[in-house]
Amino acid sequence: MIIIMERDATAVNVQAVTELLKEHGFQVIVHEGDVHTVIDALGDKTTLSPGRIEALDGVKQIKFIREPFRLASRDRKSEDTVIEFENGVKIGGANRPVAMVGPCSVEEDYEGLLQVALAAKELGCQFLRGGAFKPRTSPYDFDGLGEKGLQLLARAKEDTGLLVVTELMDSTDLDLVYKYADVIQIGARNMQNFKLLKAVGHCDKPVILKRGPASTIREFLLAAEHIMYNGNEKVILCERGIKGFDSSFTRNVLDISAIPVIKKYSHLPVIVDPSHGTGQRYLIEPMAKAGLVAGADGVMVEVHHNPAKALSDGKQSLSISQFKEVFTKLNALIDTLHLEKSSTISFVE
Amino acid sequence: MIIIMERDATAVNVQAVTELLKEHGFQVIVHEGDVHTVIDALGDKTTLSPGRIEALDGVKQIKFIREPFRLASRDRKSEDTVIEFENGVKIGGANRPVAMVGPCSVEEDYEGLLQVALAAKELGCQFLRGGAFKPRTSPYDFDGLGEKGLQLLARAKEDTGLLVVTELMDSTDLDLVYKYADVIQIGARNMQNFKLLKAVGHCDKPVILKRGPASTIREFLLAAEHIMYNGNEKVILCERGIKGFDSSFTRNVLDISAIPVIKKYSHLPVIVDPSHGTGQRYLIEPMAKAGLVAGADGVMVEVHHNPAKALSDGKQSLSISQFKEVFTKLNALIDTLHLEKSSTISFVE
Amino acid sequence: MIIIMERDATAVNVQAVTELLKEHGFQVIVHEGDVHTVIDALGDKTTLSPGRIEALDGVKQIKFIREPFRLASRDRKSEDTVIEFENGVKIGGANRPVAMVGPCSVEEDYEGLLQVALAAKELGCQFLRGGAFKPRTSPYDFDGLGEKGLQLLARAKEDTGLLVVTELMDSTDLDLVYKYADVIQIGARNMQNFKLLKAVGHCDKPVILKRGPASTIREFLLAAEHIMYNGNEKVILCERGIKGFDSSFTRNVLDISAIPVIKKYSHLPVIVDPSHGTGQRYLIEPMAKAGLVAGADGVMVEVHHNPAKALSDGKQSLSISQFKEVFTKLNALIDTLHLEKSSTISFVE
Amino acid sequence: MIIIMERDATAVNVQAVTELLKEHGFQVIVHEGDVHTVIDALGDKTTLSPGRIEALDGVKQIKFIREPFRLASRDRKSEDTVIEFENGVKIGGANRPVAMVGPCSVEEDYEGLLQVALAAKELGCQFLRGGAFKPRTSPYDFDGLGEKGLQLLARAKEDTGLLVVTELMDSTDLDLVYKYADVIQIGARNMQNFKLLKAVGHCDKPVILKRGPASTIREFLLAAEHIMYNGNEKVILCERGIKGFDSSFTRNVLDISAIPVIKKYSHLPVIVDPSHGTGQRYLIEPMAKAGLVAGADGVMVEVHHNPAKALSDGKQSLSISQFKEVFTKLNALIDTLHLEKSSTISFVE
Repeated sequence: MIIIMERDATAVNVQAVTELLKEHGFQVIVHEGDVHTVIDALGDKTTLSPGRIEALDGVKQIKFIREPFRLASRDRKSEDTVIEFENGVKIGGANRPVAMVGPCSVEEDYEGLLQVALAAKELGCQFLRGGAFKPRTSPYDFDGLGEKGLQLLARAKEDTGLLVVTELMDSTDLDLVYKYADVIQIGARNMQNFKLLKAVGHCDKPVILKRGPASTIREFLLAAEHIMYNGNEKVILCERGIKGFDSSFTRNVLDISAIPVIKKYSHLPVIVDPSHGTGQRYLIEPMAKAGLVAGADGVMVEVHHNPAKALSDGKQSLSISQFKEVFTKLNALIDTLHLEKSSTISFVE
Repeated sequence: MIIIMERDATAVNVQAVTELLKEHGFQVIVHEGDVHTVIDALGDKTTLSPGRIEALDGVKQIKFIREPFRLASRDRKSEDTVIEFENGVKIGGANRPVAMVGPCSVEEDYEGLLQVALAAKELGCQFLRGGAFKPRTSPYDFDGLGEKGLQLLARAKEDTGLLVVTELMDSTDLDLVYKYADVIQIGARNMQNFKLLKAVGHCDKPVILKRGPASTIREFLLAAEHIMYNGNEKVILCERGIKGFDSSFTRNVLDISAIPVIKKYSHLPVIVDPSHGTGQRYLIEPMAKAGLVAGADGVMVEVHHNPAKALSDGKQSLSISQFKEVFTKLNALIDTLHLEKSSTISFVE
Repeated sequence: MIIIMERDATAVNVQAVTELLKEHGFQVIVHEGDVHTVIDALGDKTTLSPGRIEALDGVKQIKFIREPFRLASRDRKSEDTVIEFENGVKIGGANRPVAMVGPCSVEEDYEGLLQVALAAKELGCQFLRGGAFKPRTSPYDFDGLGEKGLQLLARAKEDTGLLVVTELMDSTDLDLVYKYADVIQIGARNMQNFKLLKAVGHCDKPVILKRGPASTIREFLLAAEHIMYNGNEKVILCERGIKGFDSSFTRNVLDISAIPVIKKYSHLPVIVDPSHGTGQRYLIEPMAKAGLVAGADGVMVEVHHNPAKALSDGKQSLSISQFKEVFTKLNALIDTLHLEKSSTISFVE
Repeated sequence: MIIIMERDATAVNVQAVTELLKEHGFQVIVHEGDVHTVIDALGDKTTLSPGRIEALDGVKQIKFIREPFRLASRDRKSEDTVIEFENGVKIGGANRPVAMVGPCSVEEDYEGLLQVALAAKELGCQFLRGGAFKPRTSPYDFDGLGEKGLQLLARAKEDTGLLVVTELMDSTDLDLVYKYADVIQIGARNMQNFKLLKAVGHCDKPVILKRGPASTIREFLLAAEHIMYNGNEKVILCERGIKGFDSSFTRNVLDISAIPVIKKYSHLPVIVDPSHGTGQRYLIEPMAKAGLVAGADGVMVEVHHNPAKALSDGKQSLSISQFKEVFTKLNALIDTLHLEKSSTISFVE
């Protein structure tokens, strides 16, 4: 950590900083520049919040050398984290990228859900996704079937063998969701709901953490850090689009480069969600492909047996026939990428 | 609502749209343009989610005539909402702008908190703010004293008569926070935590809803709508900065124009938080002033008895002497603005 | 065009709008809603600036049915524009994606430039790119060799047969740049330098128009429209990253989805520039791939014979050996994509 | 400057960096941390572009201690720059904030322009603004009268004594604009048109530089640096809104906090333009006030004798009667602020 003092900082100001640092076990070196005094501090930032230093008089800015996330960092663990399920499915590392598909919300019609699940099974997908608890921007929109939705997912799992991914919105529902889910999803709008992160940090099921629409990559990895810090290292990161200044053609800006950036700085697996990332059916195929060639460990796509009647997100859902067409192409791409993946380092640096 | 069909939409596509609309009681008029067919639908959008229409084949885009928020809208209630407390303090409408001050987090040292509260009282502030539950980006940072913090706030209330504002982070803590708070704050990162919005919507205390850093004004008002829809109309909106592309000098971009925009479209009171909005002590004074002249019904400012030792947000907190200097100036401005406020419409349109 | 009137608009206001529209040959239909009066206007917006209507009293908002760009739109021309060069190279449509490589700035050392050009030739690239006039954020940075740089590019063209792409920064240099360039590049920071757009609109060489970092897709296509409107239809659009709120790991957010969006709404060819789009060498390979699978008609990549000594953009340049490694992989991907491209519609809609 | 090396940087990498630094006269100190080697470099960055260092193998990141702008910085010149005109009008420092008003574009109707100018004169404004060359997003919009527009401005100057502010779009028009303008305006879309900046840098008239919609404050000050570096120190900065993610209610986000930030880091005067900053007539008054209380040295506002017939920007223009009402209020505020300004430091830090 490097502390830059204001132009007009006094010797007393500098001393206050060095003392605080030394109290917390930092090794300190002071350079007096022609304009600014600069203080180098070597030590472990997790024991002293940088905010404490910033608050001292005369401190202009702190520059960090190490990233603030530790458990999620490749500096701690250089090999890729691989998450393995009971049925042998694996996410991360040199494994074949996985596919998670299903409707935005689980609806009453079980036959429809089953059709989607069977198609997913047929195309080699490993996970069925579907929401029983739905966050909705407007209170006038359908917000999920609750436990009944979870039961329908469980039934589809029994009928197809697919693993179940579903969202947890509130820590009070954890036991319920835990009972039915193979992977617990934390939605984008809850990425910094720290009570919720803590709650899933205390459980032993894999967690998909979706990137908040205004979250920097650093904030995203710090949110993962919250889960890991509380004991659960099975975190799958999901890029699903960030807020941009142009929402005329897409709902969000799907930040494809976040995938190789995260893979460089973290050992955690990363998947991509082109449905929410774009909000447009016709962009699912190109953006799923883009995510995969950029190194994603999986894709999450919304599929509905009848998008025209879907109670949520119909516009960005594929119908079953569209799903088959798109995933036949994606599977071909995934096969090729999987072959290449035998070598660990994918990209020229 | 106006539905624009794709260039290549078929007659069958158009019919599917008109039928769905009619089923939900809309009056429908179809215009065949030279490029696009356009469908006008008159009726109540709250009974039919626009997503249902968007999902139909051949639909290019929906344009809305009315805003999606209803309870929060001036179209429903043209006079300003005024929230009144037992001790006679009022927020909103033609009332004098209020001030909410105090430390970011409540800390063990009660004397420090009391000093801040007494200074606040002396300068005519009406509210003491302080966090007992703190959302923290990093798991390595101090996250609040919990109930003990709430008790310290209650003690300061007893000693000064100030009303207490404190944050609720999780619905499981509602009863606890309800017991001590005069105003319950929902933090920016929880603006779309819909379970939490629902929970405070069911209670009868005023709620401060902070704008999420990536939330549009429409999303912000829809979040307020969630609270109101569940029964609580006492919502105070708080502008506290949005994510921008330049974080070199300020943490966020404090969107001052959101204040007059919201006042035009909604009847709810709006306050401004220049501490979080900028993250810089030297910007509190100019930005508090900017918010007030732009029409804010109050300001929320972080004050700490010893910012250099604050466990959180010291950099953006005023010391007590700085607070006195700044608020002496702000009070003068508030007095002038209050005089002007006798006339309801403030700005030339 | 649909004009939505304010709640409190008067009959006189509505009449003023309808009269202005009729004067300009629009067909007008007025709907009186319960809250807002809505006016449908059918006609050609190019003869009446929407700003004229917005300025009338009582007008709340205008919603557009048709896109404001016409010449660049697929509504006018449904088949892809293909740009062909004298040596038979083609960009756009079902043609093999092209590659444009070379140093950020042309430097004094011709041997270095030639090495890059020979490697490019060897790997099947069609274009040599290099700047003779360089826009620089700081006045203290190297800003190009001017005509001498253009002469070195011409020499490399003679020695390799590669086509030359170079940037024009000011209309006063047009004749000079025209003399040496096969493709004239308009940089991102000049995307809305309308005098410059007009100037290249009057000439007959293909133009690469880079997307401005804060430009919406609509503004981007309107900038292309300026060139086309002045007579030059040979416009190649280039996605090169937009401003985002996180610049810790990448310089810009490379907006991959802009590629399929533009291909849907416009017939113009689109290329992708992962060097400027990310500012990081290790992101060139994954992001070039992402752009290609998303439908780009070509890639533009910075290559320098000795990035460690480059006078500009060394950090995001590939060395010659890295270039060979990356482009061997990209060529394999391009070959596969080219085979698929025989069918015109690439993505499931 | 502090150079942080990658985790896996070699001794050879470190040596290459230290050698390059020493070659350019930097004093170098190397710290070997447990994860990263860090190199402190003391010296003058204007002689060695940081890009040169970043391009070396093993360099992770450079952290800057000093800002990259020098001439525009308060580090070089601590007192405020004051620009004085022949008629005694002054901008900057402790002087009364100025007002620049007039139509977006100058139109054929001289009487209309004169009415605006006379009203401006009457209300104590010092400058008449009006565009003769207009940048327009769409080629189908009115783009100004050219020299004729300049002549009309000159005539209004003669008739009222107001100083003339008008935009220069292309360096080829410099002589023409120079002849008629008292202040040359560089528009937001040309903020990084470096040839244009150089051109006005060579002349001796004051320049208003508008902030580009995607420009950071650092880029903005570096653009000013281009003008100053070429010899012209009379630069007035203008905040006029940045691109945000919400354009439903305002065209841009007017970044009020940029004003006190710039005043802290630079000695140049800063004005605020609420017309372009919001695009809404009803926001001009609150946002002009916000800018002024936050420290702006002046306001620029669009006024048209008949906004309903304005050829551009009518929606955001005040009519003459609205102008009088708004500026009567603004003048009262300016009077108060001017009294306070006698003390140089306005805000508590």
